[in-house]
Amino acid sequence: MVSWNNLDTLKSFKKLESTKRVDLKAVMSGESGAKRVKGYSVPMACGLSFNYAAKAVDEEVLTALEELAAEAELTEKFKALYNGEVINTGEKRLVLHQLTRGMLGDKVVADGVDKREFYVGEQKKIADFANKVHNGEITNAKGEKFTTVVQIGIGGSDLGPRAMYIALENWAKKTGNFKMEAKFISNVDPDDAAAVLNSVDVAHSIFVLVSKSGTTLETLTNEAFVKDALKNAGLDASKHMIAVTSETSPLAKSSDYLAAFFMDDYIGGRFSSTSAVGGAVLSLAFGPDVFARFLNGAAEEDKLAKNTDLRKNPAMLDALIGVYERNILGFGATAVLPYSQALSRFPAHLQQADMESNGKSVNRFGEPVNYVTGPIIFGEPGTNGQHSFYQLLHQGTDIIPLQFIGFKNSQIGTDVDIQGSTSQQKLCANVAAQIVAFACGKDDDNKNKNFNGGRPSSIIIGEELTPESLGALLSHFENKIMFQGFTWNVNSFDQEGVQLGKVLAKKVLAHETDGALKEYSDLFNI
Amino acid sequence: MVSWNNLDTLKSFKKLESTKRVDLKAVMSGESGAKRVKGYSVPMACGLSFNYAAKAVDEEVLTALEELAAEAELTEKFKALYNGEVINTGEKRLVLHQLTRGMLGDKVVADGVDKREFYVGEQKKIADFANKVHNGEITNAKGEKFTTVVQIGIGGSDLGPRAMYIALENWAKKTGNFKMEAKFISNVDPDDAAAVLNSVDVAHSIFVLVSKSGTTLETLTNEAFVKDALKNAGLDASKHMIAVTSETSPLAKSSDYLAAFFMDDYIGGRFSSTSAVGGAVLSLAFGPDVFARFLNGAAEEDKLAKNTDLRKNPAMLDALIGVYERNILGFGATAVLPYSQALSRFPAHLQQADMESNGKSVNRFGEPVNYVTGPIIFGEPGTNGQHSFYQLLHQGTDIIPLQFIGFKNSQIGTDVDIQGSTSQQKLCANVAAQIVAFACGKDDDNKNKNFNGGRPSSIIIGEELTPESLGALLSHFENKIMFQGFTWNVNSFDQEGVQLGKVLAKKVLAHETDGALKEYSDLFNI
Repeated sequence: MVSWNNLDTLKSFKKLESTKRVDLKAVMSGESGAKRVKGYSVPMACGLSFNYAAKAVDEEVLTALEELAAEAELTEKFKALYNGEVINTGEKRLVLHQLTRGMLGDKVVADGVDKREFYVGEQKKIADFANKVHNGEITNAKGEKFTTVVQIGIGGSDLGPRAMYIALENWAKKTGNFKMEAKFISNVDPDDAAAVLNSVDVAHSIFVLVSKSGTTLETLTNEAFVKDALKNAGLDASKHMIAVTSETSPLAKSSDYLAAFFMDDYIGGRFSSTSAVGGAVLSLAFGPDVFARFLNGAAEEDKLAKNTDLRKNPAMLDALIGVYERNILGFGATAVLPYSQALSRFPAHLQQADMESNGKSVNRFGEPVNYVTGPIIFGEPGTNGQHSFYQLLHQGTDIIPLQFIGFKNSQIGTDVDIQGSTSQQKLCANVAAQIVAFACGKDDDNKNKNFNGGRPSSIIIGEELTPESLGALLSHFENKIMFQGFTWNVNSFDQEGVQLGKVLAKKVLAHETDGALKEYSDLFNI
Repeated sequence: MVSWNNLDTLKSFKKLESTKRVDLKAVMSGESGAKRVKGYSVPMACGLSFNYAAKAVDEEVLTALEELAAEAELTEKFKALYNGEVINTGEKRLVLHQLTRGMLGDKVVADGVDKREFYVGEQKKIADFANKVHNGEITNAKGEKFTTVVQIGIGGSDLGPRAMYIALENWAKKTGNFKMEAKFISNVDPDDAAAVLNSVDVAHSIFVLVSKSGTTLETLTNEAFVKDALKNAGLDASKHMIAVTSETSPLAKSSDYLAAFFMDDYIGGRFSSTSAVGGAVLSLAFGPDVFARFLNGAAEEDKLAKNTDLRKNPAMLDALIGVYERNILGFGATAVLPYSQALSRFPAHLQQADMESNGKSVNRFGEPVNYVTGPIIFGEPGTNGQHSFYQLLHQGTDIIPLQFIGFKNSQIGTDVDIQGSTSQQKLCANVAAQIVAFACGKDDDNKNKNFNGGRPSSIIIGEELTPESLGALLSHFENKIMFQGFTWNVNSFDQEGVQLGKVLAKKVLAHETDGALKEYSDLFNI
């Protein structure tokens, strides 16, 4: 049995506090810097590697982090998770998203069901359905092929699948794997659904309604919106919609849908990209084989997260360096900076995955903790960000740790040579330059042009963004978040913080308000 | 003459520090809360209002902020700015973006030119050009109308214009003002340009190259990319491209362009949406009349920023409450949360406008300051964010002030009634509910379901997002940023922090590297 303890009760955390602070600027300069870049690198799956040379750590800090990993029993806790213990204690649920893409330990049986078989079974059902859509066995009422898939979902049913779709869209077009365009409707703002519906040919569109509970207000409202549009076009909505939901939801057995595919309570929304939630839309858009390759990438990376050696476990290492930065160095945010336009919405997905998981003030037993937990996560792709908020990152009064991502090759492969280099080379040169600029700075007598340096970053480098490397990247961050949650002793798998707003919104709509809430409602004429 | 002093040298700042902290939960409860919502509201232009009831301020704090505004001479500094003093001292430049949309004070003559006349003149040239494109006087070589405009620019030449285009796209389609689709190429990542070029009909596209200096690496590279595509399609590039640049740039008189429109050094990139930088693409997309309405909205809001009465100057009030939160209460970030899908990229624009302006560690004389300056800015539209990072905002260990934006009416007007309310009503009910949930919280014996409250927010409420209200909204935030810069005594109008990365990237591409930089370059095979 593992034991769950607050971070500030651990001996190794006290020891970590007493380590000497690393002068990042000094250690990253000259030969020492070159040596760090070569040495502080961990292989990941699918050709990726995690390089942490520009983090403010050294052998003393890393040794303390190894002790912290051991005392906090991180690998043991992960083992308990993937072997099916009730890790989401608040909601009394297992946490099984890794099982959607592989089996890391024992067979997990819950509610009398072999869960791995269940997830694989749903993937097969989705693959079969997608193949039939692609080969014209499943068509609209006129016998015409569907050309567009529209996902209706919010939060985890939107951000992850949307980010993954954008990440692979151009790759799929380039490699002949593009089957159908995907669109997404999420916001309860009626302009979201109306604009998407105006932009698609509804007669040739298939809609994927995604709601685990079958009760998400935004999603049901947007379903009604879509049904109206289909009806107005003289179409039978039930021939254009599929559902992704839990078997116990009201949507599961409804005749309103062409088909229903299932997830369950053991897959949190923000960890559901590799379940049926991502599976349906991505298999329709790119084909089941591409989705399978994405799962394989994630599964390969998951295996590395089992490693008890911190130096060979990139997710755990990334997690613990983050805890060191948050709880010892006192940094409040992390910027996610992919040098890849295809990853333009990946930071928004990580923003949910991380902030919703670890933005907690109580431990897993419901007791307030005396230390800070999850940081702010934000980011935009480079080089765009360089011409935007990097000014503050370089010269602002707060230090913000940076998480770079970069690839040697582009996806589409079209490029131009200007001033002796291609755009892809310029892109890579920029991310390399930024890491060193942040770490080492540059002294200038004109203090307005002075760079203090000492601003830590890591980088994940890959050959190319493919289904496999995307899966590995997703797994890395999911597992990083999990290890940080274990270390902070919080339950990373519930989200009670979203409830109060829902309750009060219902009151507003029912006109059961007083005080400030009534006045705000009046301002909106509700 | 105004005097420029560091914030911590001001008597009024010391007084502000000594004010009693406001118990937001207490004051926002019951009748006190209702009274605050009614009283703590300032009219803005174009039907907007700024409501700060849920900010942790009271009469004592507001009085101290009034004294701070007076001692820091904020209105006098604004007056100096719009009357043409050299406010951007680092670069020895005037700061004239407000002049692109109105004249707040004296005639400004610089370099022998009446600058208001110059900006209006360029607007007229753009309007004339756009009208000729729309009515078919300017066409492609075959005499066919252009159907698409593609902006090539990065940073301020991308984020602002793109956010404004997205904000008005559906409004324009609904109201018959939609002339041409706009697309944007920004990133040096070759996949950005390649994907956009694959998605447009280049034979019917007009490209707007935007670079003030005419030397921005990303933009020139992407221009070459576009010229290649035009050439490969057998087209004469010079018949498909226009330039927006300064009169002294190499692009200004080139025969490579169908036309050139000018900005100047007195318009910072991040403040250039109301100059030719936004003017060309927005006038082509929506027509010059819509762009003029957008300018009018901004001009109306600018006038309010002249008000010496803090309680009647929404931008200054917003700015000083932000300084109070940053420097007294110690909060490190602000989340921008528009309850409007049309404003989906408005937070990304503000992220640049704010963080690039005020992410500085030295004052306007180049001396290090002893206090924190600009915060992190991030955000996503509601209700999407509620299902993402709001968990941390409600229950995380750090408090993050919130800037809500909401409108009573949608833009497209298509809606459905589900469970007794429309989507628009649900959207508004949610933002009202969130403000109260954040401020007042909810006690629960189960601490995992407990909400401490005390999390401050403001809201800008409008009737509908139109060209006018969008202009007013933009002006509000530009002026807020300016007033905060004045208060922190930083130069908000330069960006020296972006230079070092550029220098090092050039070294990488020239293979003039050693140490860590060489190793990182090797990792990317550069």
